[in-house]
Amino acid sequence: MPQSQPLVAEPEGEAAEAPMTRAERRDQQVMRILDAAKSCFVRSGFQGASMHQICAELGMSPGALYRYFPSKEAIIEAITEADRSHEAEMFAAMGENPDVVDGFVKAAIAHLRYIHESGNAPLFAEIRAESMRNEAIQLTCHQSMGEVQTSFRTYFEAAMRRGEIDPCVELETILPVMMAIGEGLAINDLPAQGVSLDRVEALMRVTVEAMLRPKRKLYETT
Amino acid sequence: MPQSQPLVAEPEGEAAEAPMTRAERRDQQVMRILDAAKSCFVRSGFQGASMHQICAELGMSPGALYRYFPSKEAIIEAITEADRSHEAEMFAAMGENPDVVDGFVKAAIAHLRYIHESGNAPLFAEIRAESMRNEAIQLTCHQSMGEVQTSFRTYFEAAMRRGEIDPCVELETILPVMMAIGEGLAINDLPAQGVSLDRVEALMRVTVEAMLRPKRKLYETT
Repeated sequence: MPQSQPLVAEPEGEAAEAPMTRAERRDQQVMRILDAAKSCFVRSGFQGASMHQICAELGMSPGALYRYFPSKEAIIEAITEADRSHEAEMFAAMGENPDVVDGFVKAAIAHLRYIHESGNAPLFAEIRAESMRNEAIQLTCHQSMGEVQTSFRTYFEAAMRRGEIDPCVELETILPVMMAIGEGLAINDLPAQGVSLDRVEALMRVTVEAMLRPKRKLYETT
Repeated sequence: MPQSQPLVAEPEGEAAEAPMTRAERRDQQVMRILDAAKSCFVRSGFQGASMHQICAELGMSPGALYRYFPSKEAIIEAITEADRSHEAEMFAAMGENPDVVDGFVKAAIAHLRYIHESGNAPLFAEIRAESMRNEAIQLTCHQSMGEVQTSFRTYFEAAMRRGEIDPCVELETILPVMMAIGEGLAINDLPAQGVSLDRVEALMRVTVEAMLRPKRKLYETT
């Protein structure tokens, strides 16, 4: 989505007539940069997009852009950070839900709905592919995914202590499998394929229940 | 993985001492090109990689490479085609398995094992990201995924007629959800993360059973 209005080149310059604080103006500029960068990364790929192209998209000088972000990697880090702060709310709601299956499923569906509504699935896929060759991006992804996984682990461990999860469930297997499943569902943007999230939620509910409350032993623990 | 031995520039030239037929030599050259292209795509991204770079990796002239493939898109199509012929075996075995849960789970695990052993997860992620902006790649992916989904649909429909699957199961929801889950598991290459496929298989078995044989109605059919 190209932004048409021209940008002031000096982010720290004096405010015109708007009663915006310097910090607010900075935040607004950062959001515009992140939006423009997302468009460029989705359109040309992370490797194909350049800082120059992001500047052109914004109508901003390279000097001005570099004052905010020294590299494309730093932009990805900021995009991931912004997504994470959105997820924080979702995890807070999950933590307060005393039913572990319901809490987990609602958090997962909220995440899928956010990815769908923000149109971020292609960016998600692009960052994922880039993380497999780029150490800086890999670190950003690992940290972000690690934080999400830790939230789930803490939540599941508490449910286990309450006897809500079968004690033979191995979190070391379940957590990476659930993260991988969530990523597959997010990248595929099922609502865009005509599959309603209400139906995905119903299926997720029976599968999460099956995983967390198995009726028989899944495998011999070694 | 760069290939070190030099390549004959003329794919249709006369055979040296090897008793290889022209078709065999051609197949061998194609395999070398696909391997070199995979390395380039994973290392530089589809957008970042060029036909020139693939030539350099192979020690092949552009003229020779273009005789095999007119574009990077054509190379991706050939890579996908090769994967598909591998999958054909997997689906043949599935079709002969009379237990739908066992047949599906074994096929899915065979696919995950193949992705792990071939080291193709990064390429898979890269093709996926590229498919979201490149119509030719999108078409290739849709065709390939469509064929896989059709195999599953045919198999599930037969099992439904035998009464092996709860008749209230909606294939229109289950199939895209299962494809998305499979993609997430494949891209994450769980064995590389230290999660054994035996354990993934055990989890998949309970979840597939929960999806195909729900004990209660999942949602009101509209």
